[in-house]
Amino acid sequence: MKRIAIDMDEVISAFSSKCLQLFNAEYQTEYTPQHLQGKLLVELDPRFESKVNCYLAQESFFLELEVMEGSQETIRKLMEQYDVFIVTAAMEFPASLAPKYKWLKKHFPFLNEKNFVFCGDKSIILADYLIDDTPSNLDTFTGKRILYTAPHNISETKYNRLNNWEEIEEYFLSELVVN
Amino acid sequence: MKRIAIDMDEVISAFSSKCLQLFNAEYQTEYTPQHLQGKLLVELDPRFESKVNCYLAQESFFLELEVMEGSQETIRKLMEQYDVFIVTAAMEFPASLAPKYKWLKKHFPFLNEKNFVFCGDKSIILADYLIDDTPSNLDTFTGKRILYTAPHNISETKYNRLNNWEEIEEYFLSELVVN
Repeated sequence: MKRIAIDMDEVISAFSSKCLQLFNAEYQTEYTPQHLQGKLLVELDPRFESKVNCYLAQESFFLELEVMEGSQETIRKLMEQYDVFIVTAAMEFPASLAPKYKWLKKHFPFLNEKNFVFCGDKSIILADYLIDDTPSNLDTFTGKRILYTAPHNISETKYNRLNNWEEIEEYFLSELVVN
Repeated sequence: MKRIAIDMDEVISAFSSKCLQLFNAEYQTEYTPQHLQGKLLVELDPRFESKVNCYLAQESFFLELEVMEGSQETIRKLMEQYDVFIVTAAMEFPASLAPKYKWLKKHFPFLNEKNFVFCGDKSIILADYLIDDTPSNLDTFTGKRILYTAPHNISETKYNRLNNWEEIEEYFLSELVVN
């Protein structure tokens, strides 16, 4: 069975939406994901620089993230044909370790926790595919690289891009035919 | 730079010694690592079956583990010539995630946390070497496999075995000459 490694933040969990929501509540701004297109949070508003670390240091931040639309259904289907791992960079924010685990068990109870990987540098990952929104994680990956569209990466042209979980499902069904 | 993945429990942290210590205190037994030779804890005393999970569920268990003799000095030296990652199976005991991170930062402050990997199934690890006391973790590894001697694995003959951190240092120095 081919193995797919799937990132968490911005791929299965709505990371930047939560940042915008907390920031809007604090500063009475009205930023939406549309304002973020092609930008990092800090490029949208420099006040994010000091705030994001505060948000991420709170256990509740990761626990309360919304699930990306379609990810649960598609991952459940992919598991019939592929070995699915969740691979997330968690070491920069150790407060995220426990809530990320709890979030996965809550929203993806059909995944075996043995297939969770909390790491820092994803070049340690051995898999056939990596779906990630961060180009630098794809740079060092040895398998097939799939850039999952997020506001910050819309100008990136180096990788095969998929825009939503419907496209991911189609892609992996077609890969079954090819292989 | 070649990459070495190093297990935690029973390789850099004295896992079974701590289990024996807690058990001895509770049941007034006098088990030592010598009693454990060739056995799992539960084969030494069936009462371990129910106790070990209780021990591991406590955050303090992982925080208080002793450091394996020589591991700090040797890892510091290896880092001059190799890319060192710590790879530990933590997902079965999610209560271990935070204390394992804290323990590593306390006892191995010279390691970058980006090189920590908390996982379940180690077949996801891409490295040139894996040092591990658990044969099943070595079974699925694609690089060079090194069995680190622990009481439970002394009858295992399948893998290149190293008995202590002095031997690890010698082995990796000689690998530099070979490569």
